[in-house]
Amino acid sequence: MKTMTNHSKIVDCTIRDGGLVNNWDFSVEFVQKLYESLNEAGVEYMEVGYKNSPKLLKGADKAGPWRFLNDDFLRKVIPQKGNTKLSALVDIGRVDENDILPRSESMLDLIRVACYIKDVDKGLELVRIFHERGYETTLNIMALSNVMENELLEAFEMINESVVDVVYIVDSYGSLDHSDIKYLVEKFKLHLPNKRLGVHTHNNMQLAFSNTLIASELGVELLDASVYGMGRAAGNCPTELLIAHLKGTKYKLRPVLDALEQLLVPLREKEEWGYILPYMITGHLDEHPRSAMALRNSENKDRVVDFYDTLTTPEVNFDK
Amino acid sequence: MKTMTNHSKIVDCTIRDGGLVNNWDFSVEFVQKLYESLNEAGVEYMEVGYKNSPKLLKGADKAGPWRFLNDDFLRKVIPQKGNTKLSALVDIGRVDENDILPRSESMLDLIRVACYIKDVDKGLELVRIFHERGYETTLNIMALSNVMENELLEAFEMINESVVDVVYIVDSYGSLDHSDIKYLVEKFKLHLPNKRLGVHTHNNMQLAFSNTLIASELGVELLDASVYGMGRAAGNCPTELLIAHLKGTKYKLRPVLDALEQLLVPLREKEEWGYILPYMITGHLDEHPRSAMALRNSENKDRVVDFYDTLTTPEVNFDK
Repeated sequence: MKTMTNHSKIVDCTIRDGGLVNNWDFSVEFVQKLYESLNEAGVEYMEVGYKNSPKLLKGADKAGPWRFLNDDFLRKVIPQKGNTKLSALVDIGRVDENDILPRSESMLDLIRVACYIKDVDKGLELVRIFHERGYETTLNIMALSNVMENELLEAFEMINESVVDVVYIVDSYGSLDHSDIKYLVEKFKLHLPNKRLGVHTHNNMQLAFSNTLIASELGVELLDASVYGMGRAAGNCPTELLIAHLKGTKYKLRPVLDALEQLLVPLREKEEWGYILPYMITGHLDEHPRSAMALRNSENKDRVVDFYDTLTTPEVNFDK
Repeated sequence: MKTMTNHSKIVDCTIRDGGLVNNWDFSVEFVQKLYESLNEAGVEYMEVGYKNSPKLLKGADKAGPWRFLNDDFLRKVIPQKGNTKLSALVDIGRVDENDILPRSESMLDLIRVACYIKDVDKGLELVRIFHERGYETTLNIMALSNVMENELLEAFEMINESVVDVVYIVDSYGSLDHSDIKYLVEKFKLHLPNKRLGVHTHNNMQLAFSNTLIASELGVELLDASVYGMGRAAGNCPTELLIAHLKGTKYKLRPVLDALEQLLVPLREKEEWGYILPYMITGHLDEHPRSAMALRNSENKDRVVDFYDTLTTPEVNFDK
C-alpha cells in the first residue's frame, strides 16, 4: 500500500476499440457524455475513433462516424475541449495522409499508428508525417507474443532513429501474464532508452488490469483502457479499475461510475464483450480471437469443448 | 514462458463457495458431474460443502444438502472416489465436533476451519480435534486486509505451536493487489517457516487469478478456485484459468471446459456472480460486500453512483 507519484497517463479507448464491438454505432450524445466524464475524472486522453480513410476500406458506409473521424464533425461533437486530449488511431494502408490536417487546425492531439512488426518501417513513415504536422505520436506494435527476437531487434533500431514519442507493447491476443509483461517492458526499456512506453492489454485471461498495473509500476507511461473494458472480443483493461487503484494519482472515480451507470452498463445489455470462454481459449492458445468471434456469432456459441478440440487438433485446424 | 515444476494444488470450491450464491441448490447430478470433471482434469481437492451443524444455524431447513454435509449422503453421491480428494469447510461456532467421524469412516480427506483473527485460538482447537481424527487440516484466516500487525504476530505464535498443516491467506474483500499478496506471502513464510500456505482470492477488482498465480509462484501450495469463478459476490479465481495457465503442471483443460459448457455457463444465466460494479466498489474501499449484495437484491441494483456516495460519505454510512 505504498504511495508514490505515478507518472502514468490513461488513454481511454472506449469509442475506438469499443467501436469494433458495435460497428461504431455510438450516438453523439453518448460520446459527448463520455468525454465529459473522462475529462472530469482527469483522464489524460480519449481515443475517439479511427482516422482511416473510407476510400480505403470496404463496408465503410455501414459504420458509425467514429470509424472515419472528420474534423468538422468532431468540432460539433466537442465544441468545448477540456483538459482531456483527443486521440485517433490509424492502420497501415488504410489511412490517406492527405486527410490529416496540421494539428493547429485539428481537434486531435495524438495520432497513433498500429502495425505488425513487418510494417514498422511503414508505420514510422506515417509517424514522421504526423509528427511534422505537429501531433504527438505513438507506434503500437501488435501481436508481440508472436514476434521473434531478431525481428524485434531490427524494429528497435528503426524506432531509435525515428521521431516517434511513445512505443506501445500490445498484447493483441490476451495471452501474456505478469512475467511476460515484465520481460517485454525491460526489453523495451533496454533497447529504447530514449523513448517513452505504452501498453495495451486484452482481458482473455482476466489479466488485462493486472498486466497494465504491473507495466505502470515498471515505468510504462501510457496505459490504454476502456470503460467497463469495452473492446473487441474479451475487451481491454477497465478504465474504472485504473482510476480506482493506480497509486499516487489524482483521478476521480465518481464521474467514471456515472458514465458506467448511464452509458456502458446499459450498452453491455445489448452488446457482448469481456471474459467469455472462447476468448479465454484463444488467449490461452496465444492466437487471434477471430475464430472465437465467429463462434460467438453462430448457433454453437456456447459449445466450447468442440471449439477447443478444433483449435487443438492440428489436422482439423487448417489455420495452424 | 519459463517451465518449472509447480508444487501447487488446486482446491476447487465451486460447490461450497458457489453455494453462497444459490443457497446450495445444486442437484446430485450436478455435483457428480463436477466431481468427474475435476477428477479427470487432475484437480487435487474438491470442496463439496460446509460441515456445519444445522442445529447451530438459522434457516437451515431451506438450504441444499451441501451446506450440512452428511457422510451417508456423500457416500451415495460419490460412490467411486477418484484421485480428487474431498474437502469441507467449517466455521467457528457453527460446527458440532460430534458430527465429525474419524477420517477412516468418512468420505472427507480435508477439513478447513475458517475464522477471523480474533478466533484463531478457537480455530486451532477445532483443527486439533480434526487432526486427531486423521484429517488433513487448514486454518483460513479471513479479512487479512483489516488485521493489524500485532494481532497477526500473536496469531503466528499460536499457529506455530499447533498441528495445523496449511495456513491460508484470505483476501475476503477482494481488495489486495500483487504487491499486497507478495507482502503477505513473504510475511507468512518468514513467521511460519514450518507450515505450508494456501491462498483464497476474490475477483472484485479482476485480480483473483493474477493474485493466485503470483502467490503460486512465490511458493504458496494450496490454491482455492472455482469453475467460472462461481462464488459469493464477485466470486473467486476461475479454476479453468489456473488449469490452463499454471506452468509445470499436468492438469487437463478439456474436462473443465466440459463442466463449464454443461454446468456453469447455463447456471450463470440464472444466478449472478462476478465482476459487477457494486462489488468492484466494495473491493476498492476494502470492505465486506454485504452492502453491495443488498444493493444487487434491490430495485436500485445498477445505481452505482448513489451507492458509491453512500459508502464514501461518513455521516451517511453508519457502518464505518
